[in-house]
This record gives sequence, structure tokens and C-alpha cells, in this order.
Amino acid sequence: MNKRGLFITVEGGEGVGKSTNIAVVVDWLEEQGIAYCKTREPGGTPLAEQIRQLLLAPRDEAMAPMAELLLVFAARSQHIETVIEPALAAGQWVVCDRFTDATYAYQGAGRQLSLEWIAQLENLVQGNLRPDLTLLLDAPLDVGLSRAGQRGDLDRFEQEQRTFFERVRSAYLERAAAEPGRFELVDTNRPLALIADDIRALLAAARAGQ
Amino acid sequence: MNKRGLFITVEGGEGVGKSTNIAVVVDWLEEQGIAYCKTREPGGTPLAEQIRQLLLAPRDEAMAPMAELLLVFAARSQHIETVIEPALAAGQWVVCDRFTDATYAYQGAGRQLSLEWIAQLENLVQGNLRPDLTLLLDAPLDVGLSRAGQRGDLDRFEQEQRTFFERVRSAYLERAAAEPGRFELVDTNRPLALIADDIRALLAAARAGQ
Repeated sequence: MNKRGLFITVEGGEGVGKSTNIAVVVDWLEEQGIAYCKTREPGGTPLAEQIRQLLLAPRDEAMAPMAELLLVFAARSQHIETVIEPALAAGQWVVCDRFTDATYAYQGAGRQLSLEWIAQLENLVQGNLRPDLTLLLDAPLDVGLSRAGQRGDLDRFEQEQRTFFERVRSAYLERAAAEPGRFELVDTNRPLALIADDIRALLAAARAGQ
Repeated sequence: MNKRGLFITVEGGEGVGKSTNIAVVVDWLEEQGIAYCKTREPGGTPLAEQIRQLLLAPRDEAMAPMAELLLVFAARSQHIETVIEPALAAGQWVVCDRFTDATYAYQGAGRQLSLEWIAQLENLVQGNLRPDLTLLLDAPLDVGLSRAGQRGDLDRFEQEQRTFFERVRSAYLERAAAEPGRFELVDTNRPLALIADDIRALLAAARAGQ
């Protein structure tokens, strides 16, 4: 019987370098010969990706805050049941581009939806499932937004105002400070080689503690 | 300032005559000159109708029970915020083809999802909103299924087994028995003229008590 895999989430605001640094995580897992599943939220299954489309598409109809939150957790529930839990149970590591911390940061702090609602849904949908390690990629807002702004068409979240992204970043940093055992803060406003060294060291430490 | 409208839901299993009898309700409202909004669940707004499509489309991927429930309530939340509550507040009656009783009957009894989950989501999403009057249309299973079977392609729910629909019908009848003040049971295995007379009398009584 396999040892249960580790559940690694990568979090951070716009333009902090998630894709680049998730590639660092994946390369390390490949080098180590660790079986893994790389996935993302919202999404990760065909149904959850359809829900993602509903969430991201700019639309004339204002989305009710509670509806948005329920869609996020509907996609998450499908993702957990059909992808994340089976992979972890089979001994694979799961590397997920955003998870529930993003819900607290974007829907909670960004859109100012009730944190109490989020906590209720987190418990209802996830039971005891929480990430084993969360890499919070952080860079000053101007650095992130300028990188993200070079990407062309903006989705419904990327169209938000600067104050929205300030709230998102603060919420992430507060969550990291509140749960130092799970979060590792990674300053991505540095040369990639230094960032990658840090990430590999954090993964090695997580493996040693597995 | 308008008196708040009444919230009328029409419930029942497959083939019990919902469309025909909702038309009876609407005709009565027209005759009485009562402003109303006719809508349905899941659906009733462009976003909620897109969620309905996700729920009804047959798919290879098994839908996680909790994901199904969260999608149902996401559509409901959007529907309440953007259609039902504004209409009621403006003094319109709302006539809704299925509401949360259908969630208890189809997802709860039919699919045997947790009634506790449904109750939690009902409270989270609806607050105190409950229908003022629920017309439960009821007919023996063979009558309903034979009517529904004449309609051609079946959606993901209509493809269920007979025992599923037996559970749905029983759950509806139990809910009606438990809340006699809100539910009115309408036997639709009778000539339409008799059913219509009953429905008009029930609506008139609801208006008198408004």
C-alpha cells in the first residue's frame, strides 16, 4: 500500500509567476521520480472546467456573490472527489494551481463576500482535507500587475481595480502569517534561479517530513 | 408602496402535468389582473440556465453528489437575488416551476444525498425565504411515467430507474404531509376541468389570506 501523497498548492495574485514556478515544482518531482498530478482551480475536470468558464466569462448579468461562491465550491467538490483525493490515496503528490486560500483572498477579501460563508462551505465540501504545503508566491503589486497586463484580454477577475488586488495580496499575506506551519512565503521579485533554489529546498523538506 | 407578492411554487414528479397546470395558474393571475413573474428552476436567469445545462446534460464524467447540490443552489442563489426577491418586493406574484422541495425530492430522496447538506445550503442561500403556497401535483407513478415517456430524448434525471421516481414521489408526499399549511396536494389523475377548478380555488384562498 502506497504512502499517501502530499497535497501542494501554489497561491498568489496576478503576475507573481505561478506558471513559471509550478514548472519548477514539476521538474523537481520528475527529477525525484515522484508520481504526481498537476492540476488547477477552478477546474481540473471537464465539468469543473465548464464551471470555470461560467465564473471567468465577462457577462452583462451581475453574478450574485453567493452564486459565485457556490460555483467555486461546486467545481472544487468535483475536483476533490474525482481527481485530488484518488491521486493522494494512490500515493501521488498533487500540485494544484490555486485552492481554497484563493477563495478567501479573491472572493473573501477581493469581492468582500462573507468569510463565514466561505468557512461553512470549506467545511461542508472538504471535510478535513487541507493542503500539506502552500507556496505563497508574492511580489509587489506593481510588479505583478505589470506582468499580468502584458497578457492581452482580461477575464472577469483581471478587470478589477487596483484596490481589489491590494486586498487580495493582503489577505494572502495574513493567511500565511496565521498558518506558518502550512504556508511558505516565496518572494518572486528576485532572479528565477534563486526562487527555484528556495522552492526545491522547501519541497525536499516537505518530503523529509512526509 | 406595494404589498409584497406571493411566492407560489409548483412541484411534482415526471409527467404529473406541471406545464398544463402552471398555465392554469397564469391564466387565473391574468384574469385577476395580478402582476406576476413566471419562472422555473433550475434556471430563470441566463447564468442559472447555463448552470441548468450543466446539471441536465448526460455526461461521461460522474458528477460528485456534493457538486450537483452546489450547482443546484448556485443557480437558486442567482435566481433569488436577481429575479424572485426583486419581483416579490415589487408586489408581483412569483410562479416558479419547482424550487427547494424538488431538491429534497430529487437530490435528497432520489439520489439519496444528505438531507443535512440540503438543509444547510437551504438556510445559507435562502435565509428566511420559503414559498407562501406550494401546489404539489400528484399522480400514480405509471400515469406520470407513461406521459413523460412520450416526450422523446431523456435528460440525465429522466434516465433514472423506476425506484428513483418512487422515492421522489414518496418524499414529495411526506413533505406535503409535514407542512400542511404551505402545501396543497392536487390529484392530477382527473379531468383537467376539475383540477383547474381546484387550483383556482386554492389561489383565491391564498389571495384572501395575503
